[in-house]
Amino acid sequence: MMEKNLIGWQKQPNKLNIQGEIERAIFDITGEEVDLIASGRTDAGVHALNQVANFKLESEKLPIEKVAIALNSKLKNSIRIKSAEEVDEKFHSRYSVHSKTYRYIINNSKCGSAIYRELEYNFPMKLNVEKMQEAIKFFIGEHDFKAFKASGTSSKSSVRTIYDAKVIYEEPRIIIELTGNGFLYNMVRIIAGTLVDVGLEKIKVEDISNIINDGDRKKAGKTLPPHGLYLVNVDY
Amino acid sequence: MMEKNLIGWQKQPNKLNIQGEIERAIFDITGEEVDLIASGRTDAGVHALNQVANFKLESEKLPIEKVAIALNSKLKNSIRIKSAEEVDEKFHSRYSVHSKTYRYIINNSKCGSAIYRELEYNFPMKLNVEKMQEAIKFFIGEHDFKAFKASGTSSKSSVRTIYDAKVIYEEPRIIIELTGNGFLYNMVRIIAGTLVDVGLEKIKVEDISNIINDGDRKKAGKTLPPHGLYLVNVDY
Repeated sequence: MMEKNLIGWQKQPNKLNIQGEIERAIFDITGEEVDLIASGRTDAGVHALNQVANFKLESEKLPIEKVAIALNSKLKNSIRIKSAEEVDEKFHSRYSVHSKTYRYIINNSKCGSAIYRELEYNFPMKLNVEKMQEAIKFFIGEHDFKAFKASGTSSKSSVRTIYDAKVIYEEPRIIIELTGNGFLYNMVRIIAGTLVDVGLEKIKVEDISNIINDGDRKKAGKTLPPHGLYLVNVDY
Repeated sequence: MMEKNLIGWQKQPNKLNIQGEIERAIFDITGEEVDLIASGRTDAGVHALNQVANFKLESEKLPIEKVAIALNSKLKNSIRIKSAEEVDEKFHSRYSVHSKTYRYIINNSKCGSAIYRELEYNFPMKLNVEKMQEAIKFFIGEHDFKAFKASGTSSKSSVRTIYDAKVIYEEPRIIIELTGNGFLYNMVRIIAGTLVDVGLEKIKVEDISNIINDGDRKKAGKTLPPHGLYLVNVDY
């Protein structure tokens, strides 16, 4: 279980990335080249409070209770290993996921925060939070979320189940939280952008069902920027 | 009233600094070279949630209700002007201060937070928070804080009055808050370092009074790093 931000998960040549950094730390300590598998990749700028990833060692050079301390000593402090545990051979960080929780933080104040500028999205126009709270309920349940995935991305099915969804208001912050069995690429950021349009009263609360049913990306809102997004939890 | 972090307040040649950045923004808008006077300078890495600064314009090119918006449009988003108001000629951001409130945030967990790594100080060894809560009470009142200022710094008097002081525990965070009529250079960071020694039981709660009375910098704790420190409020 780990925490990171600023750089993306996926390995890319010549670019700093979480996967590559942790694999290198594992190699430094064990001499083994492993494939680190995360519950899903996160884009650069997105924050992961509790990402989960698994890897397999051939040797037993790294006792499980030393994994976090040893890896943290080799990693930059923008990546922290919070804990490590041994799992069954069948465990797979991505395929074994039961549910994931994401959070999107909007700072709804005129000038935003200098200090949290990379940790939340500043939206200066006043949003109607109550309408956003009503609208988010329509996302709960099993739906085809075709309208809420980045155009051009392919995935076998765009049907996902949202178990819980809420909008919390901690003035001036509007916090959107979604728990589901899976999320399409950019899905949370597009849902958040759609809720901003509801907050602006550009989209009516009762139109959310139609937008979901029509499956037309253009009818949903904008994709909000990555730095407001948090992967909060992955449950197995 | 403004918020900033990462870079220091004071003007230095060829170095990014808050004062210089804001003076340049004022010049861009009004064509006037002003002297911007803050309630006190903050070191690089220190966060200011509500710094206060004043300046005087000869012309009337900048209506008061436009100041924040105009300056923010010229400033990087690591510096935000939260509000602006007209004041009496006699007002002076530093000399007119009635009290200031500072906060120091310690993340008392083994690996710290990747995401808040520049916004709090990670101290991995378990601290006894109750003892820290008892100890901080001894700082309240008028004292000569000679033992709690950076060695080598001069100021006419090292007598200051602390009006309120408390330690709040929000696991895993230990939040130290001090309100006083003024603070010596590094005073909050040295008090925080001394409280860490109390939390480690290296310094006894009942020894705090002696450390204050002896006035010996060496008997107080270490100066904690700047990135845990926040200027919370300045009252006039």
